[in-house]
Amino acid sequence: MPIITEDQLKIDERYMREALKQAVLASHKNEVPIGAIIVCDSKIIAKGFNQTETLNDVTAHAEMIAFTAAASYLNGKYLRECTLYVTVEPCVMCAGAAYWTQIDRIVYGAPDEKRGYHKQGILLHPKTKIMGGILPEECGKMVSDFFAAKRK
Amino acid sequence: MPIITEDQLKIDERYMREALKQAVLASHKNEVPIGAIIVCDSKIIAKGFNQTETLNDVTAHAEMIAFTAAASYLNGKYLRECTLYVTVEPCVMCAGAAYWTQIDRIVYGAPDEKRGYHKQGILLHPKTKIMGGILPEECGKMVSDFFAAKRK
Repeated sequence: MPIITEDQLKIDERYMREALKQAVLASHKNEVPIGAIIVCDSKIIAKGFNQTETLNDVTAHAEMIAFTAAASYLNGKYLRECTLYVTVEPCVMCAGAAYWTQIDRIVYGAPDEKRGYHKQGILLHPKTKIMGGILPEECGKMVSDFFAAKRK
Repeated sequence: MPIITEDQLKIDERYMREALKQAVLASHKNEVPIGAIIVCDSKIIAKGFNQTETLNDVTAHAEMIAFTAAASYLNGKYLRECTLYVTVEPCVMCAGAAYWTQIDRIVYGAPDEKRGYHKQGILLHPKTKIMGGILPEECGKMVSDFFAAKRK
């Protein structure tokens, strides 16, 4: 993991709170609460939250929705100047999609020990910087609370 | 790779020709010519071809479009009784999506030595059987001819 400045950490936390707001929208739809935003030139250009149940579609992860929305906004499929903020570590599918976007940076909240891309040994695009552990407790607690409520 | 019967091989080749028809549709749109279909109960329930340029969206691979269409047709996100036929070995993103679908079987045509899921060490869902090398020359030639024409 790279070392970041205190200013950058504040910026990352601020944007992660925006991604968390997307996760809340997912929880309102009884979806696993994972949210994402994409930032370009200090502007949020795309938002997404997990909608796999609502849309009956395994590909409707927060990141995938955000990638598609960002490309639509930029009118180009590459996200080379963008940062993805996502509340939980991306899965293999989303890391694979991130590869194709050539995105500049990925910042995630909580690690996903089970289905996270990292443990599967996936390589991101060589141009992509990765940073985990931004508000990990808040991001992780949303998901663990969701599953705890499900089990009740 | 599992051994298959001559009858199954004939069936696989017939369906791969349908996937190749989808690849032809991609080439008509000046897209990298990769096509996919999904078969359930001996019926083609979904079709897709690569549309990353047309839709300005890296997630618009043939397989992803077919997964979404098949789930919509079945009104359920799992494709446990289905077979995906795709002209080229799936990439990491598409293999990751296939994992979530729990699809029964994936049959591909030409290997993709560079960006194929296999070389990246991705594991499919334990329930998913994989078979490569069905009409590999025809499937691979479509893509190599496309790039050869581009270079001219």
